[in-house]
Amino acid sequence: MQINALAALEKGAELQPFSFQAAPLKSFDCAIKVLACGICHSDIHMIHGDWGISRYPLVPGHEVIGEVVEIGSHVTHLQLGDRVGVGWQQAACMHCLDCLKGNHNLCDQAEGLIVSGYGGFADYMVVDSRFAFILPAGVSTQAAGPILCGGATVYAGLRNAGMTSGQEIGVIGIGGLGHLAIQFASRLGNRVTVFTTSADKADFATQLGAHEAILVPAGGSPPLPINKLNIIINTANQALDWLGYVNYLDSNGTFVFVGIPSEPLTIPITPLTSKQRRIMGSEIGSPAMIMEMLQIVDKFGIQPMVEMFSLDQANEALQRVLDNKVRYRAVLTM
Amino acid sequence: MQINALAALEKGAELQPFSFQAAPLKSFDCAIKVLACGICHSDIHMIHGDWGISRYPLVPGHEVIGEVVEIGSHVTHLQLGDRVGVGWQQAACMHCLDCLKGNHNLCDQAEGLIVSGYGGFADYMVVDSRFAFILPAGVSTQAAGPILCGGATVYAGLRNAGMTSGQEIGVIGIGGLGHLAIQFASRLGNRVTVFTTSADKADFATQLGAHEAILVPAGGSPPLPINKLNIIINTANQALDWLGYVNYLDSNGTFVFVGIPSEPLTIPITPLTSKQRRIMGSEIGSPAMIMEMLQIVDKFGIQPMVEMFSLDQANEALQRVLDNKVRYRAVLTM
Repeated sequence: MQINALAALEKGAELQPFSFQAAPLKSFDCAIKVLACGICHSDIHMIHGDWGISRYPLVPGHEVIGEVVEIGSHVTHLQLGDRVGVGWQQAACMHCLDCLKGNHNLCDQAEGLIVSGYGGFADYMVVDSRFAFILPAGVSTQAAGPILCGGATVYAGLRNAGMTSGQEIGVIGIGGLGHLAIQFASRLGNRVTVFTTSADKADFATQLGAHEAILVPAGGSPPLPINKLNIIINTANQALDWLGYVNYLDSNGTFVFVGIPSEPLTIPITPLTSKQRRIMGSEIGSPAMIMEMLQIVDKFGIQPMVEMFSLDQANEALQRVLDNKVRYRAVLTM
Repeated sequence: MQINALAALEKGAELQPFSFQAAPLKSFDCAIKVLACGICHSDIHMIHGDWGISRYPLVPGHEVIGEVVEIGSHVTHLQLGDRVGVGWQQAACMHCLDCLKGNHNLCDQAEGLIVSGYGGFADYMVVDSRFAFILPAGVSTQAAGPILCGGATVYAGLRNAGMTSGQEIGVIGIGGLGHLAIQFASRLGNRVTVFTTSADKADFATQLGAHEAILVPAGGSPPLPINKLNIIINTANQALDWLGYVNYLDSNGTFVFVGIPSEPLTIPITPLTSKQRRIMGSEIGSPAMIMEMLQIVDKFGIQPMVEMFSLDQANEALQRVLDNKVRYRAVLTM
């Protein structure tokens, strides 16, 4: 199969047309005709080689919505014509204890779609079918991309931190991830407090379902807590006053990182012991978490807010993401 | 009631005889004749005013075993002659959500026995009966003191971190707390790895039930992990190479602080996200946790290793604790 994609041919390069011949499908693979693909900040990190794991030519795109056009010999859960979504992960060993428990995202052999393969900035894509998930009919092709990576990341983060209902949930940052975290937490019966540096975004957060918006000075500390939170999810990628936020946690509360600042976390230990608080991390979502999330998205009307671009506007779209101008997720349609 | 105690009359002073008249019992109080009292490092911190919460005269002692000699009008669960133990906590509001959930140790109004009152370095002591726990018959008076504070702290820490059975449990530090953590974890059906800087203690740990002892250079880092742990409990009070230990945690593993170094925790965030690890704190134990622990101590033969001193040797015993010479907990008998 001939695939026509856009790729960074070297570190940090603008995307250019790049065509290649895909290898024949392996037994569990499927080929999809790409219909839409979200843009995540991780695409930009990968293009720029920020994590030291990039190979070039690099085809970005790991929030991929497509139609199944070919399946490998062992694929039983997909049929031609199915509409599927693919997120960050494209492979796992399938046999370790993590995989067998359903935590494929924690597998030591986990592979990122655009780390080991070619992503969704393309007309077609080949991927292991076990990481391609059928979309419920009510989920729109245009809006679904950001759900597969950003949505899975915050949904899994909230669930892994113990979100049920009737809780007080804090969300730090209102962007591609945060604007979905607000919706998941509030639609599933929780009271949501957002922390943002932007008055505009604070206003928008309440439209999305947040019950309270707390303005934090850029580079500054949140005000002293007035209400206590059971869970706080951090979607920001820069170092913040973590202690100021941890002090918002109620007894037995959990702070979960899904945004990953490069600076280490520094925090005194007494605020953890005195109220039995937890700090944890959560990374993308397991296949089971993604399937569960897709049902929730459909049933509870979670709506990513997207700006649409055509594939040939990809460089422009990437620049808008880099400039933090997109409200709240960019999506390419093919 | 006239009480004859030993007290630090001012910050950092040697203990001296100190007699006082106890107020009449309040309705939920009980008076006990002290039989034995463990010495915890916190007694020394309180004598030295290290935490800024000490009042003088300060009567130390919060691992108290005594016989009930008087009860207040509302006390129904204790009778004269009962043998009870009292730990760090002597009061809570009893009405907040934490208290009503059984987490009295997290109550904002929680009071420490030697913070708000007079401790067990005395012939008699008065305490709220709701924080005095009947000892099972099989638990020895001499050995029980350290169970009430040190034992409760590590038992609650392990349970709060999710210890069940069949798990890999790591214990950092073999002292008053660590030597009990090893016993709880191994007797309750877990495989225990200890980290210590002392070859002697490593040897002793295996006698206590540890399955593996890892020698760590003083001030240095643990070797790279060879096995993965589900839970690590830290009983040390100094800053260590936390990342070196967190890297021992398996997927979904939990690191729990019960020893509280004064230096902040500093750790990169990626090791938390990539394996969905948690870092938490746990402080003393709730009343329910203490009662449950006392049953475990009795049924599973948990044995604090103690060095016995008479009350008039209290200053000498405190010095040995300060010099880290006690193996593994000092107890005063009256």
